[in-house]
Amino acid sequence: MEEQIEIVGKAFVDHYYNLFDNDRPSLASLYQPTSMLTFEGQKIQGTEDITNKLIQLPFEQCHHLISTIDVQPSSATDTATATAGGILIFVSGSLQLLGEDHPLRFSQMFHLIPTVEGRFFVLNDIFRLNYG
Amino acid sequence: MEEQIEIVGKAFVDHYYNLFDNDRPSLASLYQPTSMLTFEGQKIQGTEDITNKLIQLPFEQCHHLISTIDVQPSSATDTATATAGGILIFVSGSLQLLGEDHPLRFSQMFHLIPTVEGRFFVLNDIFRLNYG
Repeated sequence: MEEQIEIVGKAFVDHYYNLFDNDRPSLASLYQPTSMLTFEGQKIQGTEDITNKLIQLPFEQCHHLISTIDVQPSSATDTATATAGGILIFVSGSLQLLGEDHPLRFSQMFHLIPTVEGRFFVLNDIFRLNYG
Repeated sequence: MEEQIEIVGKAFVDHYYNLFDNDRPSLASLYQPTSMLTFEGQKIQGTEDITNKLIQLPFEQCHHLISTIDVQPSSATDTATATAGGILIFVSGSLQLLGEDHPLRFSQMFHLIPTVEGRFFVLNDIFRLNYG
């Protein structure tokens, strides 16, 4: 089950950044009204406001390159039921903007919650650029 | 209540890195048997193994300088009961080791869970150095 969480986490990361880089408005499908995004310290809540924030970021084309993905269950269930709970994902990588020479390093965390349909949505999303 | 979560999160961050820098074995007080640490990709579970890992890191004196702290509730409760749930904390900063010229940039996330005694313990802890 440990492995299953890893698989779900990595598949989510692939999916998320693929949508971000190729079809940003579709990210709306991953959020719900209770979802929270903190983007460079700015707090935003709900599918619509979060999606608008992401769409309106001041760059049109970008490419995320993922360096590391760490995954943990977000509740202290035993391993047999771990996937019934939430999943924490911690990502580090770099963001290449069209026309910029140097990629921006970033870290981001997601908290995925299972839905009754057997999928996951993003309840928590925190993004920070890494400076220095 | 939003503010209360921020206060708890920031107080925890102060406390955690103060213990880390000045009395590392005392970090044991913040973990429980269900706690998970992923340190640079290495997964460790439980108070004793986590504390041993942190104590045995290959440096004796260090100083953490915190750059950013982002806090969110980890469950979709309404604001009146938000502090009854868990708290996600996302930290970025730098780690100065004794005798090293350049600090190391890092990102770390914690998931705090309230205890019956009205305190919090660390259920999830993910640490990554930021390279590049």
